[in-house]
Amino acid sequence: MLDVTSPHLLGPVPAHVTLVGAGPGDPELLTVKAVKALANAQTVLYDNLVSPGVLELCAAQAEKIYVGKQASRHALPQEEICQLLVQLAQAGRSVLRLKGGDGYIFGRGGEEAQALAEAGIPFTVIPGLTAAQGAAANHGIPLTHRDHARVLIFATGHLKQDRSVDLDWDVLSRPQQTVVIYMGLGTLPVISAQLVAHGLPASTPAALIEKATAPDERCITGTLGELPSMAQAHHLKSPTLIVIGEVVKLREQLHPRLEEIHGYPIPSLRMK
Amino acid sequence: MLDVTSPHLLGPVPAHVTLVGAGPGDPELLTVKAVKALANAQTVLYDNLVSPGVLELCAAQAEKIYVGKQASRHALPQEEICQLLVQLAQAGRSVLRLKGGDGYIFGRGGEEAQALAEAGIPFTVIPGLTAAQGAAANHGIPLTHRDHARVLIFATGHLKQDRSVDLDWDVLSRPQQTVVIYMGLGTLPVISAQLVAHGLPASTPAALIEKATAPDERCITGTLGELPSMAQAHHLKSPTLIVIGEVVKLREQLHPRLEEIHGYPIPSLRMK
Repeated sequence: MLDVTSPHLLGPVPAHVTLVGAGPGDPELLTVKAVKALANAQTVLYDNLVSPGVLELCAAQAEKIYVGKQASRHALPQEEICQLLVQLAQAGRSVLRLKGGDGYIFGRGGEEAQALAEAGIPFTVIPGLTAAQGAAANHGIPLTHRDHARVLIFATGHLKQDRSVDLDWDVLSRPQQTVVIYMGLGTLPVISAQLVAHGLPASTPAALIEKATAPDERCITGTLGELPSMAQAHHLKSPTLIVIGEVVKLREQLHPRLEEIHGYPIPSLRMK
Repeated sequence: MLDVTSPHLLGPVPAHVTLVGAGPGDPELLTVKAVKALANAQTVLYDNLVSPGVLELCAAQAEKIYVGKQASRHALPQEEICQLLVQLAQAGRSVLRLKGGDGYIFGRGGEEAQALAEAGIPFTVIPGLTAAQGAAANHGIPLTHRDHARVLIFATGHLKQDRSVDLDWDVLSRPQQTVVIYMGLGTLPVISAQLVAHGLPASTPAALIEKATAPDERCITGTLGELPSMAQAHHLKSPTLIVIGEVVKLREQLHPRLEEIHGYPIPSLRMK
């Protein structure tokens, strides 16, 4: 009689995959759940939006695989990342997939989760703070406010194949909203011009936040119309977040002193 | 000559206030920074969206003051909370203001920060996961997805004084978006009807998530048109999040087993 419980007949049992949101950058902004998962990780797949401080929290014996991508230069296409996740898990390796921000907000975590589900691999998701939340806290820009913004919109400024930006400008041009655009630095002139063309005043307060929550983060404020020249004048680089709306003007009053946030040494976060 | 450094002449130096996002409920979804702040807290002001498990992480000697509000019954009006924060800090007590979710996303953190800034009291903000992020991770609903939603919108369903709902229905009724509505359980019939009237198909997938990330959390899925009857049939209570968009249908494929998330005992999170 066939012994179906024999490991030789069954092959390795697929291991668990954990999709972990690495948050905006500051390792102290990881969730406790994420820190614990990192401390116990066997194999870690990470990309270039994951900060070095976060990576240091991985178990010493963990194998770290870089699968990062940048706007123009993909280290590994998304399909290959999905395939690698599945292959590692099928080989019995438990995998921690570490993504900057929150994997379910512009992190393509949905696609990776689908690939795992289709292959029958068990997975769980640990959410992470998205960059806008870190930027808001560190620079005194509440994302909503009764007097200024009752709606909060997250969008991306990515180019389509035909070099146009695929955004619903009508939705983004209403008053009493805060609009946050990820990955929009390269398309800033189009974003600024289109929003103004669709009725949002060029004088609307706007901010550019580079490397939100990193020790060398920068926040430049001005107006919607000035966004392209602001980016140029300050030589901003990716990742830079765009925040548009009346809430930006609250920064003058609310911005904390960054020394207080970054000034004291960050104690060890390792948890076992 | 007048000695301006004398404490008798200056009175107490105003203490620091930390506005801390308590996240969606699961204490393990707090940030490391928030856990450390709680462990060192002197006076904690909290409201009813802060879960008991999070409160337990406060320093044993911390004084906890409940200032919570519910939709219909305010424990303390917002102005009085702001005043209390200022008074405590001016009396030299360092205060940790603990708010469910993220204080800068529908948490009225902006108003409290303004009150502190106006009174010259130093403060910092620690962001927290907003309920939608916890709900998305625990129930397999990616908030964005290349094929289904390139824009993510957060709004509230609060009633205005005249009993109408103050939302820009045009913005919320577009295709290829995910719309998350906080505090909308009481106005669900209006929300459902208005979105359909403004062109969003009644068949659009939709979910109601009660007490996201709590051990007894529930997620009910159906369609936009069915939302009011779903809430009624399942006797959902506040806090319940509304998620509308094609991404909700991914839950069938992606929802993790909640036993895996809540099934194992949560180890102590206390940090000193």
